[in-house]
Amino acid sequence: MAPIRNTALIFNEIPTGYPEPGKTTVFDENRTIDLENAPLNGGVLLKVLVVSNDPYLRGKMRDPKILSYTDAFKIGAPLANYAVGRVVRSESDNFKVGDHVTGTFNFEEYTILPASALSYLRKLDNNTNLPWSVYVGAAGMPGRTAYSAYNEFAKAKKGETIFVSTGAGAVGALVIQIAKRDGLKVIGSAGSDEKVAYMKEIGADVAFNYKTTSTDEVLDKEGPLDIYWDNVGAATLDSALGNMNVNGRIINCGMIAAYNTKEPYPFKNLLRVVSFSLSFNGFIVSRLDNKYAEKFYAEFVPLLASGEIKYREEKTPFAQAGEAIQRLQKGENIAKSVIIVADE
Amino acid sequence: MAPIRNTALIFNEIPTGYPEPGKTTVFDENRTIDLENAPLNGGVLLKVLVVSNDPYLRGKMRDPKILSYTDAFKIGAPLANYAVGRVVRSESDNFKVGDHVTGTFNFEEYTILPASALSYLRKLDNNTNLPWSVYVGAAGMPGRTAYSAYNEFAKAKKGETIFVSTGAGAVGALVIQIAKRDGLKVIGSAGSDEKVAYMKEIGADVAFNYKTTSTDEVLDKEGPLDIYWDNVGAATLDSALGNMNVNGRIINCGMIAAYNTKEPYPFKNLLRVVSFSLSFNGFIVSRLDNKYAEKFYAEFVPLLASGEIKYREEKTPFAQAGEAIQRLQKGENIAKSVIIVADE
Repeated sequence: MAPIRNTALIFNEIPTGYPEPGKTTVFDENRTIDLENAPLNGGVLLKVLVVSNDPYLRGKMRDPKILSYTDAFKIGAPLANYAVGRVVRSESDNFKVGDHVTGTFNFEEYTILPASALSYLRKLDNNTNLPWSVYVGAAGMPGRTAYSAYNEFAKAKKGETIFVSTGAGAVGALVIQIAKRDGLKVIGSAGSDEKVAYMKEIGADVAFNYKTTSTDEVLDKEGPLDIYWDNVGAATLDSALGNMNVNGRIINCGMIAAYNTKEPYPFKNLLRVVSFSLSFNGFIVSRLDNKYAEKFYAEFVPLLASGEIKYREEKTPFAQAGEAIQRLQKGENIAKSVIIVADE
Repeated sequence: MAPIRNTALIFNEIPTGYPEPGKTTVFDENRTIDLENAPLNGGVLLKVLVVSNDPYLRGKMRDPKILSYTDAFKIGAPLANYAVGRVVRSESDNFKVGDHVTGTFNFEEYTILPASALSYLRKLDNNTNLPWSVYVGAAGMPGRTAYSAYNEFAKAKKGETIFVSTGAGAVGALVIQIAKRDGLKVIGSAGSDEKVAYMKEIGADVAFNYKTTSTDEVLDKEGPLDIYWDNVGAATLDSALGNMNVNGRIINCGMIAAYNTKEPYPFKNLLRVVSFSLSFNGFIVSRLDNKYAEKFYAEFVPLLASGEIKYREEKTPFAQAGEAIQRLQKGENIAKSVIIVADE
């Protein structure tokens, strides 16, 4: 069989503000792959079905000389992220043709994982009949993020109050539901009335649109906060800091407000870490996986399949991936953003 | 016996900047106490020997309507803090006349603790022959602060790098020595060349005067930091944040730079909490006491008595307590500040 097209989304240029489709990333339709003869080196060849679009990808679009917990994308190479694929060829005993697997793949139609990468590949049985795309969302990294970090850091006690920013987002909407099941009073914020309605639908006791309502006023009235789940940073984090209760816990899941600007936000309320004895934790979900991943698949994913915990998705075809990445960084997505590369 | 003089340091006015002797606090020599007949209500009457002067006291000189982990001082009443005293009269079976005890006492020559306060009173056997004043310093709250929080939060591994600000201070100088005994590379900062010399004497690998040397430059050269012990906040914390290693731990012991100003410091590097997966912990030493206090007295205090861990003190007579409090807030003290109320 002759080589066939293997379109990819290429990292083209380090952005200074929001990533721009056609500039930061380019869609390259001129690449090819020989499905029968491409060397696998003991690994597998996958057809990529879904790749995830997550806020943290912005951190990978940087000068590789800047150290971070995650590697920088390489100029000229495809982006890569959590994804689901189907095995097309395999030189491994653990994965056979037709298996569905999840791991970190390139943004390309077909991808090869060498033997050394197979230990990070997870076979999906999908007894639960969830769509494959959910395995990069509520049943994937964002789900594990919500589940693992909540269990590790929240130290929640029934009746306490939690505030979740981007409460309609891929992670935030799950945190709202986990906290509600734990008997907490849940306050959620988001940037549109539609998202506010969704937060109420999934159980938030208080939900507000931070673009039209003052975060300070809501937190002053509904606080103090025992737990703040931060997806935003900047002014929202500063308001939360100013409204934390003694011994409060801040879980720093993300600071999307800081990802696309060079102008650092001047935090005013950091003294509360000392004066209120706060704990304040950043984390990398992969480092919590040892402790929580198996419990997550055994206990949490069935709640998604049964509908007890709700999720929503926003699907974008591969050709518009660059646009979806920009929309997510601007907060214009309305649900977990997934990029559909192929249906099956 | 007729009532005798019972001089006290009274909290007179909430300061806006540094506390001012004669204004924030006044020395009141017109108070009296009847040592024989003052009602004890099942408690004890103590002669106060030493009271501690600590940075955190500034936080108590506030409007009581502002919530914090520690009560505000009451206008018109004496200040209170960790102290050592000798029992003069007792209605308790656990404390007899002549016992030396440590607890939280008023800044006054004689003080009465009711029965309800006795559970917080600790009898000092002083087998170690340390001076009483050390029991409000290296063998008291500052010592427990260094010992307990280091053991709770540092998660130190041999060969890692720790940066300690105010490394010549009551807590910082102990942290330097504990970290050194743990096999860490220790960087210390302080505000005078004399303090720099002292940090070197107690084992710091790198010691610098932040007033004459750029903190950023030192940390850039000697970092990255696995652990930052923060006593300062503000620009020093921001520099440390910018030089933390992935998975770094920040222990927020104090933010003295913020205690005496209304102008909040604009932190620029807080994003690292997320991007470097940092943990960042404020704490209240009294909440760690259950876990660490007995070990501290059994294991750490003997190291002070044997000279294996060094400490220094700066003694101020009671009449100059207000001045000592101001000097400490300005960082003009050169060692653990203690206020001597009586010799024995």
